[in-house]
Amino acid sequence: MPIDFHLSPAEEGIRKAAAGFAAGPLKDARQIYMKYQQHSERFQSTRPIYHQAVAGGLIKGQIPPHLGGAGGTLIEAAILVEEMYSVEPAASLTIFSTGLGLTPMNLTGKPEHKEFLAPFLSGEGEPLASMVFSEPGGVANYLETGAPGLVTTATLEGDEWVLNGEKIWATNSAGWDFEGADLQCVVCRTTNPSSDEPADAIMILLVTIADIKRNAPGAFKVLRHISTAGHTACSGPHIKYTNLRVPVKNVLCPPGTGAPIVSAAFDCTAVLVGAMSVGIMRAAFDAALTFAKGDNRRGASELLTRQAVADLMSGIKMQTEACRALTWKAANCLENGPGDYNARRELALAAKIYCSDACTKAVTDAINVVGITAYDADQPFADLLNTAMVLPIFDGGNVGIRRRHMQDLMLSKDYDSWASTYGPSK
Amino acid sequence: MPIDFHLSPAEEGIRKAAAGFAAGPLKDARQIYMKYQQHSERFQSTRPIYHQAVAGGLIKGQIPPHLGGAGGTLIEAAILVEEMYSVEPAASLTIFSTGLGLTPMNLTGKPEHKEFLAPFLSGEGEPLASMVFSEPGGVANYLETGAPGLVTTATLEGDEWVLNGEKIWATNSAGWDFEGADLQCVVCRTTNPSSDEPADAIMILLVTIADIKRNAPGAFKVLRHISTAGHTACSGPHIKYTNLRVPVKNVLCPPGTGAPIVSAAFDCTAVLVGAMSVGIMRAAFDAALTFAKGDNRRGASELLTRQAVADLMSGIKMQTEACRALTWKAANCLENGPGDYNARRELALAAKIYCSDACTKAVTDAINVVGITAYDADQPFADLLNTAMVLPIFDGGNVGIRRRHMQDLMLSKDYDSWASTYGPSK
Amino acid sequence: MPIDFHLSPAEEGIRKAAAGFAAGPLKDARQIYMKYQQHSERFQSTRPIYHQAVAGGLIKGQIPPHLGGAGGTLIEAAILVEEMYSVEPAASLTIFSTGLGLTPMNLTGKPEHKEFLAPFLSGEGEPLASMVFSEPGGVANYLETGAPGLVTTATLEGDEWVLNGEKIWATNSAGWDFEGADLQCVVCRTTNPSSDEPADAIMILLVTIADIKRNAPGAFKVLRHISTAGHTACSGPHIKYTNLRVPVKNVLCPPGTGAPIVSAAFDCTAVLVGAMSVGIMRAAFDAALTFAKGDNRRGASELLTRQAVADLMSGIKMQTEACRALTWKAANCLENGPGDYNARRELALAAKIYCSDACTKAVTDAINVVGITAYDADQPFADLLNTAMVLPIFDGGNVGIRRRHMQDLMLSKDYDSWASTYGPSK
Amino acid sequence: MPIDFHLSPAEEGIRKAAAGFAAGPLKDARQIYMKYQQHSERFQSTRPIYHQAVAGGLIKGQIPPHLGGAGGTLIEAAILVEEMYSVEPAASLTIFSTGLGLTPMNLTGKPEHKEFLAPFLSGEGEPLASMVFSEPGGVANYLETGAPGLVTTATLEGDEWVLNGEKIWATNSAGWDFEGADLQCVVCRTTNPSSDEPADAIMILLVTIADIKRNAPGAFKVLRHISTAGHTACSGPHIKYTNLRVPVKNVLCPPGTGAPIVSAAFDCTAVLVGAMSVGIMRAAFDAALTFAKGDNRRGASELLTRQAVADLMSGIKMQTEACRALTWKAANCLENGPGDYNARRELALAAKIYCSDACTKAVTDAINVVGITAYDADQPFADLLNTAMVLPIFDGGNVGIRRRHMQDLMLSKDYDSWASTYGPSK
Repeated sequence: MPIDFHLSPAEEGIRKAAAGFAAGPLKDARQIYMKYQQHSERFQSTRPIYHQAVAGGLIKGQIPPHLGGAGGTLIEAAILVEEMYSVEPAASLTIFSTGLGLTPMNLTGKPEHKEFLAPFLSGEGEPLASMVFSEPGGVANYLETGAPGLVTTATLEGDEWVLNGEKIWATNSAGWDFEGADLQCVVCRTTNPSSDEPADAIMILLVTIADIKRNAPGAFKVLRHISTAGHTACSGPHIKYTNLRVPVKNVLCPPGTGAPIVSAAFDCTAVLVGAMSVGIMRAAFDAALTFAKGDNRRGASELLTRQAVADLMSGIKMQTEACRALTWKAANCLENGPGDYNARRELALAAKIYCSDACTKAVTDAINVVGITAYDADQPFADLLNTAMVLPIFDGGNVGIRRRHMQDLMLSKDYDSWASTYGPSK
Repeated sequence: MPIDFHLSPAEEGIRKAAAGFAAGPLKDARQIYMKYQQHSERFQSTRPIYHQAVAGGLIKGQIPPHLGGAGGTLIEAAILVEEMYSVEPAASLTIFSTGLGLTPMNLTGKPEHKEFLAPFLSGEGEPLASMVFSEPGGVANYLETGAPGLVTTATLEGDEWVLNGEKIWATNSAGWDFEGADLQCVVCRTTNPSSDEPADAIMILLVTIADIKRNAPGAFKVLRHISTAGHTACSGPHIKYTNLRVPVKNVLCPPGTGAPIVSAAFDCTAVLVGAMSVGIMRAAFDAALTFAKGDNRRGASELLTRQAVADLMSGIKMQTEACRALTWKAANCLENGPGDYNARRELALAAKIYCSDACTKAVTDAINVVGITAYDADQPFADLLNTAMVLPIFDGGNVGIRRRHMQDLMLSKDYDSWASTYGPSK
Repeated sequence: MPIDFHLSPAEEGIRKAAAGFAAGPLKDARQIYMKYQQHSERFQSTRPIYHQAVAGGLIKGQIPPHLGGAGGTLIEAAILVEEMYSVEPAASLTIFSTGLGLTPMNLTGKPEHKEFLAPFLSGEGEPLASMVFSEPGGVANYLETGAPGLVTTATLEGDEWVLNGEKIWATNSAGWDFEGADLQCVVCRTTNPSSDEPADAIMILLVTIADIKRNAPGAFKVLRHISTAGHTACSGPHIKYTNLRVPVKNVLCPPGTGAPIVSAAFDCTAVLVGAMSVGIMRAAFDAALTFAKGDNRRGASELLTRQAVADLMSGIKMQTEACRALTWKAANCLENGPGDYNARRELALAAKIYCSDACTKAVTDAINVVGITAYDADQPFADLLNTAMVLPIFDGGNVGIRRRHMQDLMLSKDYDSWASTYGPSK
Repeated sequence: MPIDFHLSPAEEGIRKAAAGFAAGPLKDARQIYMKYQQHSERFQSTRPIYHQAVAGGLIKGQIPPHLGGAGGTLIEAAILVEEMYSVEPAASLTIFSTGLGLTPMNLTGKPEHKEFLAPFLSGEGEPLASMVFSEPGGVANYLETGAPGLVTTATLEGDEWVLNGEKIWATNSAGWDFEGADLQCVVCRTTNPSSDEPADAIMILLVTIADIKRNAPGAFKVLRHISTAGHTACSGPHIKYTNLRVPVKNVLCPPGTGAPIVSAAFDCTAVLVGAMSVGIMRAAFDAALTFAKGDNRRGASELLTRQAVADLMSGIKMQTEACRALTWKAANCLENGPGDYNARRELALAAKIYCSDACTKAVTDAINVVGITAYDADQPFADLLNTAMVLPIFDGGNVGIRRRHMQDLMLSKDYDSWASTYGPSK
């Protein structure tokens, strides 16, 4: 079939469902959670929304069919993320972060881990999963030879692994009651590695709330809730494991096999951050358009008749369109090619970096269209800006991580510039 | 079918053919024409290349099948333009400008004009067509009520129209010998309009080389060949019509019907300028990559290992990817929707403005990667920059024309922000 | 004397005093006011700091010597603003807004208004002044012929003026207790103008807290406190005057003389917004530098050794240096030339627009240097971003007001491009 | 004295003289040299202009008074460079490059080298000097430990040094007749260094045209004249030394002392490239302004009345003002402080990088103001763009050299962010 941009019935169905959820449970989320002062309380106040997301299939939809879920293509996911993010980023991020938390299992897909997936397939309750990776000192260089590597360690003692160390920024990691998510996918370093190569020590352990309860009190602890500028109803606290013991069956990835899974998981989220950026820019455009067509600042005609305003607006519009087209292409390519995995991955990285970097500027331009009214916190613009600012720095910071990966790809001997579009050049 | 970015066999066929032509006749074009000092001589020296283009079907390929041509979709055209522009912009522009010169006939598609198309369907010779629109004073506001409108006028005398006025910048308008193109599509203003509304006076006359020869000497004259910074082997001179008479059958669009055809023609080229921009950025990226992987500026490792260099390179790469994805989307949408014509048109304008504006910066970044070596005119970078600089200002300047059209669209009462992606919102 | 950039002893003295105040009372301001949830409470909690500012001469220092104050040059003011803003924008803005509130009196300088200045010369208490100009519908086009003009009106009844209308965004307008500032300079429109020319109706009335107390309850009312993204300890509420009566001696500028004073006042603040921008960028640079030299994200060497980080940092540094140099030049020129008033004014506008527009990008770059840590609201970066975002849109929005003024200047017949640098060209 | 931006009588005198030279000999330079096709011929055709520059004191003015010259401050030089560059970059660069060629002597200032300076103090003829540093493989990393270092070597044989190697891009190096400049300052590497530290091998040899004539034919050879995009009347060819012998008295800097002199020379030129950038932006602004106030593109009013045009214009204007202010500050600081040499140097680097990077964008914006007319090579815009593009990459490329030096400064332990403005912070 030729290149095509029309949504298939399935894609259109996802979009409508997402739009429905956005117009329903998500619509007043902010109004509700902003009644609370503490970010941790705001997070907890979104639990009913999450409940509806579970009931509506939004969690099951992040698990692939072969594992019993209802997940679709990455383009469908991108469409869904855009719809929801354009209305309510924080509550949406909690939902998508469970998806990220499940991604390592989606990627490994072993039957012996099915029990861990079960709560997320049930369509009941409000189960949270979390990908627990970032650490207080950062993880940008965790595989650099000679560098100290991950702080969080796992030591095999008998038929248990003993987990120690601190993590931070892992959305959902502490669960609704801050005693641990229903499922944590903890990226850690074995203390008994097979070689000096840092990657050989990396493993992934599953930690359930049941595991935590079986341990002594204090084995899992929230050290600090973090207030953030945007996503103020999300929870990604500074946590600590102290001799937390889990059975050997909780090993999702044995030492030496964890790093590629981490990498692959973040390739998927890279595309979705592209979609988040599109959602934010779209919301900024629509809000600024409403203002520019409805307000004249006491002049003779509506703001949009002024070229200075119109050029900012068309700039935001074009940037949003370009970012959406790139995100879709990256999503399609990551799953279907053309090109080898490196070629596909480059586009995913591009979607993350390019769209998130564009987002802050687009929102700033929208603010300049609106003028001083945008400073009013009751308007959506300040919140959009504060959400936008994190897109380049979370999920693998653009400067320290994502651009470095692009550099590595370009440096590789068999780098083939346009393979992700036209296939291998030879 | 779902959204898809894989080239169909037809699309892949076009790409291979274009790549073949680029690797063949186009490859040494610059080397040949740069031997000449005068731009007009350089233009003439590309005639053999044009001959091969005709023989290879590149002219017939710009005419739709229902008129006897072999034209394909707009995405196919975009793919072709990118391939050729990335290798040789000037000789390519001459070829594509014949396509633009034929577009008004493609759009009107009346049987009575078939004789004018015949030379372009023959696959023989080097017939040039030209869309003759721009004028010395500019045409940005030619439809503005109260403004003077077009300078070039047509007056009906008996069964002939008498053409008078000056035109400029119309690629190919003067033909290979500067005595007139094989076919000129001249946008002009009747001196006897039906109303005061400027659009009611706009008509399009066909002028063939045979028409010119039938007239008195001097009825068609090149006033000045223009040296330009880029595209130095193209010809778009300042020309003048003095009582040039053509028979009434040469009326392609009667008064009052010309302006929409001009507009529609430039909607198509808008997408193609997007593809030209992609071609230029791609060439800049590839040339800079070769340098950055092959040169170390006497340091310990190749340039690309330096983050400052890598970040410029990945920036160019991402910009190119985003522009290509946007251009494809615009091409697909203009022909197939979703959205009404205004929604589709907005994306075409976006492809023109966004990609051409991005191009100068991308080439500048490539120049900064390479450093002082890029200043050597034997390197491709200066030429790429000088080609890039015209993309925003030709084919409807971004500031004066294209962005104004985007403003008009946004101002319209039933503007529907995302209809070109998701269809009408209601 | 030749061009010189060394601080004179007086300038150095101002800087040291400002740095001392910043390192003293301002240092912990944020920590104190952030304990309060409501922005209005945060504002009130800064009253002790303001008290110290008064006692330390910072209010008297905003009144020129010939009116009994200790004010210095505009460059000195710029130096002071930069020092204070780089440490604590909100509490500083309250202090500088009193300066703006007094500027109309500073500019008119009539003996009969000395009584209104007295509280601000005393060095005692916490007197607040406010320039009350902006209105709910905006003031971008308040002098446009045919447009409705200001909403706030003044009607002469006997020997009193009766004030009616709503204002918004005027920092300090409501005073510490939200019953009115010690002094409001209210820009309004007489209901009995001498002509249809909007400017002929503009006048400025002084309203003291004593005036308000003399009126019926409800004559001055705060309709809404506004929560803002940055400057969260400032107060610029939506207020309303209802038949507020003041004696005729309170007329600072009679009808027809108000607009130029408003304009001149905002020419001064334009320069100071340049200095605020410099202060914010400087703070962002210093905070990011500390991080980049002290953190290695678990890699082999500190972040700043990475070129990607260093290039962002040097970009912020250069932008800050350029903005400071421009701000100083604008300050020097506005008071001393060369060039006529229009030429001088252009530089003041440039300092406002250019520096404030640069600020958001510079802070965003600093955030990208730091990475995810910058998302922690305990870090200074989110607050810097939220302060930066308002600089382009307050004090005369760049898009709607300040750039329009630049356009007017350029359009004037005797515009002389470089007169503010080299004097008149003829 | 306080900070001041007024030109002193001496500064104003320089400016008037420069403006006079620009309005005189420089004004028609381009018209003259563009008659020639070869860049080398164009260069030669500017000799009469250079003659007038010598006669007018422009060469002597680049030598400090203590060496017999009439040189002034660096701010004066910046003023002069701006005036001349805004009218004619190529012929001006030839003049200033003699200044750069003399700078090592100006910096070392030893009596024994006075004879080499004599021709340049005479006010007669057309003596050319050249700083010969760049090499075909680049010099970005010539001091990197372990890297191969400079290709051009000097070997002491008896009382002569024997020079071998290739150089490129050194403006004026080949002289008017391409047999060698009157004076070349050749940076080279002794083949017998005192240590492995690359800097210990760097020396500077003086080579006069008389030296070359004394040698065998072919000892100095031009391998290739380079055509460039801008500065098309300058000469900086690829040259080669083959056993070129010069007496020991020609050693300007013995091994181990050359590198700091090279560095210091380029600190001065860094400031002057700032001034060149200002000159180019100023010329672009003025040319675009003339167009925008004199052309209406057949609309109802002049272009500048359109906000889209005006905002581009005010953007160029503000950028130019900021760059000039920064350049002046850097010039003043490099000579007079405050701050230690590193602090001063940082500002010089900032002037080079920041202003040259801004220049391409400013010229591009001017081109967008003008539209398609700017593509006409008879208009100044294409030439301005092609001059602008080299400013970031010559005189030490921004990416490879200048930004690296800024990084080194920031990384140094005692880096003091604002010392060049406010003096040491401690």
